[in-house]
Amino acid sequence: MTEALAPAQPLAHQRVLFEDGLALDCGAVVAPLAVAYRTYGTLNAARSNAVLVCHALTGDQYVAERHPLTGKPGWWEAVVGPSLPIDTTRYFVICANVLGGCMGSSGPAEPKPDGSGLWGTDFPSVTIRDMVRAQKRLVEHLGIERLLAVVGGSMGGMQVLEWAATYPDMVVAAAPIATATYHSAQNIAFHEVGRAAIHGDPDWQGGRYWEDGRIPAKGLSVARMVAHITYLSEQALGRKFGRRLRGASALTFLEDVFEVESYLRHQGSTFVRRFDANSYLTITRAMDFFDLGAERGGDVAAAFRGTQTRFLVASFSSDWLFPTAESRAIVRALNAAAANVSFVEIATDKGHDAFLLDEPVFHRALGGFLRGAAERVGV
Amino acid sequence: MTEALAPAQPLAHQRVLFEDGLALDCGAVVAPLAVAYRTYGTLNAARSNAVLVCHALTGDQYVAERHPLTGKPGWWEAVVGPSLPIDTTRYFVICANVLGGCMGSSGPAEPKPDGSGLWGTDFPSVTIRDMVRAQKRLVEHLGIERLLAVVGGSMGGMQVLEWAATYPDMVVAAAPIATATYHSAQNIAFHEVGRAAIHGDPDWQGGRYWEDGRIPAKGLSVARMVAHITYLSEQALGRKFGRRLRGASALTFLEDVFEVESYLRHQGSTFVRRFDANSYLTITRAMDFFDLGAERGGDVAAAFRGTQTRFLVASFSSDWLFPTAESRAIVRALNAAAANVSFVEIATDKGHDAFLLDEPVFHRALGGFLRGAAERVGV
Repeated sequence: MTEALAPAQPLAHQRVLFEDGLALDCGAVVAPLAVAYRTYGTLNAARSNAVLVCHALTGDQYVAERHPLTGKPGWWEAVVGPSLPIDTTRYFVICANVLGGCMGSSGPAEPKPDGSGLWGTDFPSVTIRDMVRAQKRLVEHLGIERLLAVVGGSMGGMQVLEWAATYPDMVVAAAPIATATYHSAQNIAFHEVGRAAIHGDPDWQGGRYWEDGRIPAKGLSVARMVAHITYLSEQALGRKFGRRLRGASALTFLEDVFEVESYLRHQGSTFVRRFDANSYLTITRAMDFFDLGAERGGDVAAAFRGTQTRFLVASFSSDWLFPTAESRAIVRALNAAAANVSFVEIATDKGHDAFLLDEPVFHRALGGFLRGAAERVGV
Repeated sequence: MTEALAPAQPLAHQRVLFEDGLALDCGAVVAPLAVAYRTYGTLNAARSNAVLVCHALTGDQYVAERHPLTGKPGWWEAVVGPSLPIDTTRYFVICANVLGGCMGSSGPAEPKPDGSGLWGTDFPSVTIRDMVRAQKRLVEHLGIERLLAVVGGSMGGMQVLEWAATYPDMVVAAAPIATATYHSAQNIAFHEVGRAAIHGDPDWQGGRYWEDGRIPAKGLSVARMVAHITYLSEQALGRKFGRRLRGASALTFLEDVFEVESYLRHQGSTFVRRFDANSYLTITRAMDFFDLGAERGGDVAAAFRGTQTRFLVASFSSDWLFPTAESRAIVRALNAAAANVSFVEIATDKGHDAFLLDEPVFHRALGGFLRGAAERVGV
């Protein structure tokens, strides 16, 4: 598997440049700051109907439209669209590629300002809070003083929590979904496996693979494979594939024998065509660093004290990457801060990925939560 | 990380050669068949006190003594020894390196009979039943007609089940621990990640790395890292490491930041010094192939019908690699076969690895079970 760098013609992402740049938690400044984004629906005259959607680790701003690289539907077309929970006939939906991403926002795959090539591993370490700061610049640029809601799952949910904690006056409603206030040791460990696979691929070339166009496809593919297992559940894998064979006639260890294997390999090989390895390193690190309580002296509730934001916390029963226990911890912290919070655990065997899938109970809860918030502010 | 092949002087493992070889499930014949083994304690005059211990994926025959390569204690010194549950003052304990292993039994790391180098990936695919067939040859060679007990955890437990199903008259008592009657789709998926990492390492060289001595250390290390996570539990990782930092002063993604990362990397780098990558491919495949029911028309109970063997099935509450539900399925099948079975689930947060660790309740259950079996046959 040798993969060339994707298009010679870079995609023309819709984006805004902030020439003054952004100061990061690590002390570095990224200047100019590029934020690539997409919007759906129409901002009302009062500028009060904006919903910011935050994407997960390997997501991007193409929420509710065909993806320009893969040609596949947007990653949340089950949730964002006309008459859907995040109703684009009613709300103005914004989604930005995260800082450190590889779909047009400032990140390792973008050119360095000094013209010496791409950022690569010279791109500074970013945090979830840095991502949120970049989004805030975009939101202000769009003339929006207050968001009706910030919504996201997984790493998107981390951003939601950080938004509500850092800019409480800008967030009417917040829906952190399938997420946690910190990344667990087990999740850090799985990320580290992926990073070790990328670092171990000689085509990674110390991060300078963009110089000769050979990308660390094998390493990145292994990283995706192991991560993908954590997005599903044992039951979902059992139901989808069980022990079904691919019709291999002989006992062999050199080829895929079980359907689950070729499925995983397919996940790996398609991923490397759309995602940048250095971005993967940067963003997994940002998730690992995330610890909302540690930023506030160990007290998560302190992050939300006095908040007027309304919260919907949602988890999925078979999610073992961000188990329900971690959502309950969010709820406890919000309760301790006397915040307005409702909580729903969705019964499903689809694992972490359920937040992206057809889950009617979740969709009704999210839709109702947003309508309530909208009515409250007269949208 | 460049690793040389281990010792220029191969270890002189205690072993027996069967010149007529062994016919495998895949149709190939391995001839001669080498079975490397260790014994502890003394075989009594009636030859009725033999306990066969079956090792797990990366274990070997050095159960209760210093390991000749690593210098570390044997892998089950908590269980096998004087006055321990598998009491070497009372029982004659045998453990053989599995077929396909890399500690002296026939496998990819051994020379090919035709003198053309090592087996490497030319070593045929083996099954758990093939491993058991090889062990049976050893047991007969030692003059033992009937084993007092066969005991093992994880892949060792698969061998225990296969022993009881294939040679019921040779097994007085069987203790399958932290295991299952088949390998789940999720477990196959994790194995496939490891294999993809090995295959993707250019130093694997299509399996012929023994020719130039450069071993696929990075790929094998990644395989070990991901497997190691599955041997623990989220709670155990959280308790052992949590989010403790290694004292890294800056936000970085190029080095280990969290203690759990350097722990995992250490697990990977020490593993490659003692284990053969092609063996890892062979043995993980054998586990994936294991499906005791499928071999008997889908009916696991049929594997045990009419058995006189006494069973102890044991599971560990936080084991998510071989969850208690899978042990309960073994018990159900044994009950349906009207077998004599007792079952214990040990409450622990140590995950799958608990079967190797200090778990007094488990040790008392296993010790009592073996004493009961011994008294039954007058040992």
